[in-house]
Amino acid sequence: MNAEKSVEAAEECGAKGVGYVIIVAGGFGETGEHGKNLENRLKKIPEKYNTRILGPNSLGIFFPEKKIDTIFVEHGDKALAGGGGIAFITQSGSVGVESLGIASNTGFGLRSFAGIGNKADLDELDFLKYFGKDSKTDCIALYVESIEKGREFLEEAEEIARTKPVVVLKAGRTASGASAVSSHTGRLAGSDKVVSGALRQYGIQRAYDDEELCDAAKVLAMVKPAAGGRVAVITPAGGFGVMCTDYIESRSHRCSLRMARLSDKTREKIRKNSFPFASCSNPVDLTASADNAMYLSAIDALIDDEGVDCILCITFFAPPSISRNLIDGIAEKTAESPKPILVFTQYGPFTDEYLKEFYEKGVIGFPTVSRLVRAARFIAERGCILKSQPADTKVRHSKTHKFTDLFRKWQKSLKSPGSPDEWETRNLLFQLGLPVQKGIYIRSEKIELPLDITPPYAVKLCTPKVLHKTDVGGVCLGVSEEDLPSAVKKMRTRFPGEGIIITSMVRIEGPEIILGSLFDPVFGTSIMAGAGGILTEVYKDVAFRLAPCSKSEAREMLSELTVSPILQGYRGSTMDMDSLAEITAGLSVVSAAVCEGGNQLDINPIVWTGQEWQILDAKIVFSSGAENMVHS
Amino acid sequence: MNAEKSVEAAEECGAKGVGYVIIVAGGFGETGEHGKNLENRLKKIPEKYNTRILGPNSLGIFFPEKKIDTIFVEHGDKALAGGGGIAFITQSGSVGVESLGIASNTGFGLRSFAGIGNKADLDELDFLKYFGKDSKTDCIALYVESIEKGREFLEEAEEIARTKPVVVLKAGRTASGASAVSSHTGRLAGSDKVVSGALRQYGIQRAYDDEELCDAAKVLAMVKPAAGGRVAVITPAGGFGVMCTDYIESRSHRCSLRMARLSDKTREKIRKNSFPFASCSNPVDLTASADNAMYLSAIDALIDDEGVDCILCITFFAPPSISRNLIDGIAEKTAESPKPILVFTQYGPFTDEYLKEFYEKGVIGFPTVSRLVRAARFIAERGCILKSQPADTKVRHSKTHKFTDLFRKWQKSLKSPGSPDEWETRNLLFQLGLPVQKGIYIRSEKIELPLDITPPYAVKLCTPKVLHKTDVGGVCLGVSEEDLPSAVKKMRTRFPGEGIIITSMVRIEGPEIILGSLFDPVFGTSIMAGAGGILTEVYKDVAFRLAPCSKSEAREMLSELTVSPILQGYRGSTMDMDSLAEITAGLSVVSAAVCEGGNQLDINPIVWTGQEWQILDAKIVFSSGAENMVHS
Repeated sequence: MNAEKSVEAAEECGAKGVGYVIIVAGGFGETGEHGKNLENRLKKIPEKYNTRILGPNSLGIFFPEKKIDTIFVEHGDKALAGGGGIAFITQSGSVGVESLGIASNTGFGLRSFAGIGNKADLDELDFLKYFGKDSKTDCIALYVESIEKGREFLEEAEEIARTKPVVVLKAGRTASGASAVSSHTGRLAGSDKVVSGALRQYGIQRAYDDEELCDAAKVLAMVKPAAGGRVAVITPAGGFGVMCTDYIESRSHRCSLRMARLSDKTREKIRKNSFPFASCSNPVDLTASADNAMYLSAIDALIDDEGVDCILCITFFAPPSISRNLIDGIAEKTAESPKPILVFTQYGPFTDEYLKEFYEKGVIGFPTVSRLVRAARFIAERGCILKSQPADTKVRHSKTHKFTDLFRKWQKSLKSPGSPDEWETRNLLFQLGLPVQKGIYIRSEKIELPLDITPPYAVKLCTPKVLHKTDVGGVCLGVSEEDLPSAVKKMRTRFPGEGIIITSMVRIEGPEIILGSLFDPVFGTSIMAGAGGILTEVYKDVAFRLAPCSKSEAREMLSELTVSPILQGYRGSTMDMDSLAEITAGLSVVSAAVCEGGNQLDINPIVWTGQEWQILDAKIVFSSGAENMVHS
Repeated sequence: MNAEKSVEAAEECGAKGVGYVIIVAGGFGETGEHGKNLENRLKKIPEKYNTRILGPNSLGIFFPEKKIDTIFVEHGDKALAGGGGIAFITQSGSVGVESLGIASNTGFGLRSFAGIGNKADLDELDFLKYFGKDSKTDCIALYVESIEKGREFLEEAEEIARTKPVVVLKAGRTASGASAVSSHTGRLAGSDKVVSGALRQYGIQRAYDDEELCDAAKVLAMVKPAAGGRVAVITPAGGFGVMCTDYIESRSHRCSLRMARLSDKTREKIRKNSFPFASCSNPVDLTASADNAMYLSAIDALIDDEGVDCILCITFFAPPSISRNLIDGIAEKTAESPKPILVFTQYGPFTDEYLKEFYEKGVIGFPTVSRLVRAARFIAERGCILKSQPADTKVRHSKTHKFTDLFRKWQKSLKSPGSPDEWETRNLLFQLGLPVQKGIYIRSEKIELPLDITPPYAVKLCTPKVLHKTDVGGVCLGVSEEDLPSAVKKMRTRFPGEGIIITSMVRIEGPEIILGSLFDPVFGTSIMAGAGGILTEVYKDVAFRLAPCSKSEAREMLSELTVSPILQGYRGSTMDMDSLAEITAGLSVVSAAVCEGGNQLDINPIVWTGQEWQILDAKIVFSSGAENMVHS
């Protein structure tokens, strides 16, 4: 009922020339057919009357400076009176309320809150643009369940992120039952790694839950970025120093951090102003006997150490020689320091009160060590983003017509439409300029090998009729020159009328790699790189980027892989990551042509021979949903 | 000065026959030589005077029922007046204070707190034993930086954990610069996976930070264990349902959870008592229009569904038809339900107040979705522990004298003492009953192959002098019968006087596996299993158990590996995990013999041939620190 009435009211407002209407009511698209029709009526209002709609299902807008507060639930606004620089844009009302809740206890710094709800008209992009231009906004935090206008959103956010941090919580992370018939690339993308790859590529930071989003927004709005990942820790309590070290050195999907190595000079300085039994290496453990002056002098020493990018202060107010004045001292250092300083504190029932006082004095603190270190990762990540080169827009908008023409022509030439065999797929990739391993295709028993295909050979059945050619004896490896005719003859006899591919056996160094591409419904053509072979879907060690991407973006994607140390020469590997990045960037340019209409491409594996990268096998899954069953 | 005086005072107390002395002062072993001497004086008191010492560096004891409170810092004890069942034992004073802090805001249920500090006399084991027997203790939570008497502690905790949960936060997780010259097993253990494996093996749960320890203790003390990992979620807010689903289905190092599939009957029941636009599958989204009655009736439906093991309630008190009475309703359901129910709530500045009211009515709630789901993992993990078989004590105490004798005899027979070559290591493993691949060792040019070593062959150099035999041409693979004499001759010429091993080439199915064993300073002989080959130290996909272990413990260890789906037949693999578990259990029995004195053993790889497991290579690193440089 509410929904219906609110549509009528909105239409009336439109007719009367009202500029903006906020619709709080629910019961629209989320409730079924009737609701969807109502929502469609709403969608017509902007064009018809030039009236903009926020909602339906919007919690409203809170913008203290403009004296706007249309939020109808309790939101602890008293605590927000001081104002701040965070613009919080949220699709879900409850996630918004929570941010205000967290705000009210320990300080948050909200500039404005906007609940966008069902986005019948105004969406995250509109608010992103607004707050991007707003000089009093220091950080934009978004909670979204869906992203409209994917690329436009990313490009706008990328532009903004050059001057102010943008952090996104995108719900819907886990695989949502992706189609069973799908390429490796398609299945692996199901876990929404495309979103992660896209956000990273465009310099947008990602949070994974409500609390993390609020923590990230707070720290990104108020704390300087870290120039690198070398962290120093000061603590009056050994246990917390150890825990903090553990978190810093743990593997993370974010920016990696490490414990800074303090210089001799720094250690001497700390030693001079602390007890003889204090530990002056990192973590600096001043012991529970420390006083304010010792603590502050240790901060000074760390600020001066060129090997330190970020300082974490574990503070307690129970020790007898520590007084509440320490807060002022740390606040002073934080304001002066060119390096970011973050605080952890716990003080029984007074914890929030102390965190609030820190906040009011310009210092961001957290009540747990894991949140402290997580916050440090956000400012280190921000530092990386600021240091990275702006994207190569020439690459971003490369023309791909000729590849599309080529793909269409190839598609028409297929022996069985929609179902290319391995040889046809190899040919396509070769024409697209990718380094496919040399081979020949034969249908008769006559074998004329070019000189550069040398023994030993691999002899492979090539037909769209067989799913797993190994299982039916369709693959014969390590065939010598003299055995080749008989091997071919055997294959001929077993599979009369089918094609055969002959290649050289290739010496493989290091792990197999998989490359792939697909069409993402929100972001468009995307590419994937990862560890290939039998373990691909076990370790899921893959990363995504949107296509086309530059070589340096491809290199960054490869660096994200757990397997990347091997690509970079770990354990004497000679693998050439740079040339793999080049191939990947090349693939990203041509992949739109292949994936238009939703096709998926797996290049699996591409291997390093010691001299070069070679594609040994590839398959294309057409969007019809029928898997191309040629290669196993 | 304090330290010195407190020792004197303790000695006086001893002389006067005082039973127990708590030493709060610091400045002992942690401060250097002088402090160590003082601590040694303390250590003598118990024996000399029959006076037990707690500390030094102890925060004291808080035990409201016994009216003991020796804690000298603010600890929010007012909030603890109600009492509860958690015994909190902590090595670090500050970690203890924090638990009391968390307690005071939202309810914690502390029975007692003990700060054990430097453990000059009483240690975690003493308190574990005490609270293990205390009938009013429901859960024992420990924060430790070091564990004394490793095995005894584990066995005691295991016994207790059959009736009440034991949860441990062990700080010092990351690699602490393990010796550079070390086996794979040794390097991988550096990241303290031995501790994780040992705790899991003995049914002890592990937390990774202060907040997690408190959350775990609270939930384990007050909430029923979950019979399985199938979780149902009720929410009035779509966004939180999605986030919750994401967390439930994310991979975790803990017990895995999944979203329960609700039965048709359940969905009908929910539908009947909710709005037509509510979503009645899991997560159950009642929408913000829901009222208390709808919420409670949905809980009823989920309690009745046999496919649900655990119910997570996302609650908000802002929606107009939800009143504070919902707390009473949920409390009633929680008390009646045979299944665990957990709550999430956020309500701006009132969050803690609402969580406290839930707590007082017997319901455990959390202010973030990630903590909610983490808590669910703890109770699911507890359910697994209760269902698991008691350990096979016959295996635990298997006699290994004969293996030790065998090892010592073997050690004496080595051509170069402390530096066995591959052939010698193979022989040892064979004698210990492990499935080493067949081969022959030759020193002359005469080759007499037993019938069961068939072509093609692998010809490998066997000498302690070469580190990476592949790099110097010391390995020749795929040698045919007719080429064997010339291959051996070549090797002979290149490495005059060195041994050669000839084996059959083996067909390898699936990934290579690594097994290993080492001597852990705290827990003694431990074994490792993991994904082998070039990627071992990249993915670090390994798990540890203490030795000896039963076959079912070995199977559980293998199941922890990310690669385990392949061991269990994923993608048509025929690998036999059961027989690998048997081999691993066998290794665990003999490994004490090999690792006594600190030696490390790598079996890398052991492979599946399609019929059986075969060890293809192995090396022993002697504790002298000098790596056995035979095999690469």
